Amino acid sequence: MVASLKPANPGDSICDIETPALILDLDLFEENLRRFDRSIVGNNVRVRPHAKSHKCPAIAKIQIGRGAAGVCCQKTSEAEIMVANGITDVLVSNQVVTPKKILRIVELSKKASVSVLVDNPENVNLINDIASKHNVRVRVLIELDVGANRCGVTDDHSLLQLAKSIQNSPFITFIGIHAYQGRAQHVRNKVEREALIRTAIEKVLHARDLLESLGFSCDYVTGAGTGTYEFEAASGVYSEIQPGSYIFMDADYGKNLDENQKPVSEFLQSLFVLTTVMSTANPKRPIVDAGLKSLSVDSGLPLVFDSKTMYVGASDEHGVLESPEDTYKIGDTLRLIPGHCDPTVNLYDWIVCVRGNNVEDTWPILARGASI
Amino acid sequence: MVASLKPANPGDSICDIETPALILDLDLFEENLRRFDRSIVGNNVRVRPHAKSHKCPAIAKIQIGRGAAGVCCQKTSEAEIMVANGITDVLVSNQVVTPKKILRIVELSKKASVSVLVDNPENVNLINDIASKHNVRVRVLIELDVGANRCGVTDDHSLLQLAKSIQNSPFITFIGIHAYQGRAQHVRNKVEREALIRTAIEKVLHARDLLESLGFSCDYVTGAGTGTYEFEAASGVYSEIQPGSYIFMDADYGKNLDENQKPVSEFLQSLFVLTTVMSTANPKRPIVDAGLKSLSVDSGLPLVFDSKTMYVGASDEHGVLESPEDTYKIGDTLRLIPGHCDPTVNLYDWIVCVRGNNVEDTWPILARGASI
Repeated sequence: MVASLKPANPGDSICDIETPALILDLDLFEENLRRFDRSIVGNNVRVRPHAKSHKCPAIAKIQIGRGAAGVCCQKTSEAEIMVANGITDVLVSNQVVTPKKILRIVELSKKASVSVLVDNPENVNLINDIASKHNVRVRVLIELDVGANRCGVTDDHSLLQLAKSIQNSPFITFIGIHAYQGRAQHVRNKVEREALIRTAIEKVLHARDLLESLGFSCDYVTGAGTGTYEFEAASGVYSEIQPGSYIFMDADYGKNLDENQKPVSEFLQSLFVLTTVMSTANPKRPIVDAGLKSLSVDSGLPLVFDSKTMYVGASDEHGVLESPEDTYKIGDTLRLIPGHCDPTVNLYDWIVCVRGNNVEDTWPILARGASI
Repeated sequence: MVASLKPANPGDSICDIETPALILDLDLFEENLRRFDRSIVGNNVRVRPHAKSHKCPAIAKIQIGRGAAGVCCQKTSEAEIMVANGITDVLVSNQVVTPKKILRIVELSKKASVSVLVDNPENVNLINDIASKHNVRVRVLIELDVGANRCGVTDDHSLLQLAKSIQNSPFITFIGIHAYQGRAQHVRNKVEREALIRTAIEKVLHARDLLESLGFSCDYVTGAGTGTYEFEAASGVYSEIQPGSYIFMDADYGKNLDENQKPVSEFLQSLFVLTTVMSTANPKRPIVDAGLKSLSVDSGLPLVFDSKTMYVGASDEHGVLESPEDTYKIGDTLRLIPGHCDPTVNLYDWIVCVRGNNVEDTWPILARGASI
């Protein structure tokens, strides 16, 4: 982490922030935390927020302070960084298949409550072999493909083979079922989102029956994201939910619709990329200093917050605006709503936490770039 | 830079590299350097490679060791990191408009030969004011919009106003004209690429005549990228070229066509993302461990090197393959060709340099994330 890359310090005015900068509006962030807590009242589910969204131990600690059981991570290195920074319960919601990474999971299991996903018997055998050499028991969840068409077992025969491999692995402890319907999160129509989760729940119940017939105890069923967690939380089948983006939101989640076909409004946009106008040579197309290296455009270009101005083009370090009404001067700043929060956060070393016109705190994104 | 994020060490076998990893095939990289040198023989142009592609002082030093005059950077913090690591001549090929950044350029100008672009008289006045307080002369180039429709003056009236503001600024030294036709770089048809550069050259000549009529000396004309530099280099008008991607190449540049409507072949793909198969639950759609946080997809999904397998979908940390012929086992590794090299390099802290089956070196990407 290079010191010269820190865009602001606590006590600065927002006018002092070097741009482009990732800024978190603390009033809105805290309101999202409160709204989330209210949204699950009456549901008997544990909360394990996904740290892949923030990659920031400071935020993980806030979530755990509000009752979260721990966090999910997507990669071994993310988990190592979370554990090194005081997080004691991490679910690596992914397959860990290479001997070096499995060894890292074994070592991490000595320091914290760590679990990983499995969907392949050979992988189970390899984990068991490595764990046995270190006399450590590795905690695993069976991943089911419940419609995301990504990882996870897809049929009863594969599930049976996987279950047998676990039963034959003394250094592996089965703890539950992982069933994340990633594809449902951004389905715009709420009725369709709910239907996809209903199908996922049916697949979970079928797999649970099969596993329980083999003597597995399947009380622990985990999954769900910001777009659908209300359904999993109310299902009585999922015992844990894993939302990540609810704390920040982004332009893509903002396109999801509620039961009235209106954009969802459960959560507020709290995360922005602060950018500065650096050229008005063409006044109708001002150029800002945030481009592809400051915004992930995989889910579309960013939106300009609270304005009719549009961000219409990105190159490495330039963003092109079109302003039908507004006129901009060089040095003007704008707040951009990232198209996709997770990979955008992953571009930054610091989250600049603002309240009103002040920089209240700066949180290092310690797991930025932790993909191995 | 977190130690646990280093995917390999010199002396490792490529089998030991933790994935996803950014790997540079040194034999191919060095061949690209030789091919580039040959490609400009007989042209009277200086070379100033663009460091925004690699963000890596180790590569900048190799380029300067082969005769480059220095490097281009796109951001002030990139320039600071290059200078702090021994690069003594840096053109910041961008506007620097806020007082804090201008002050950083003033401070950097005390340590190295630094220049910036201007396209606005008020910006010139502000640079002059800040430079005067520190008794430093800031070297500027006038940026012309020669067709990229981004920054840069667009008409004679604006150019005259800008020129006057420079003449009235005792702490600003005009050194030349910046004319980069960014849009031409990825125009597929070579005849069209050349035509766009011919138009750019006409704009440069017109502006040069106007500036020389005001007493400016315009021997220094700089611009050009990997897609078009052969035209600027042969023009007799450009005195310097700024290619960046030629050392790495990517899938997007690979779509440019030569005079025979065949994919360009001047340079070889030397940069890859090494990825590992982590799930074969659906054998027809293997899942690899490189997704949106390991590959920038702004210019399209990556290609699978030397294979008919296709990379068909990316989520944060998963890539979905379709393999019509090949079958994959868990743990198999593949080389992916990034869709766009520059923002992909910006996701990594390390370039793992491989030769044959060995890791020969690891270069820190010290300016990774340097966007402020």
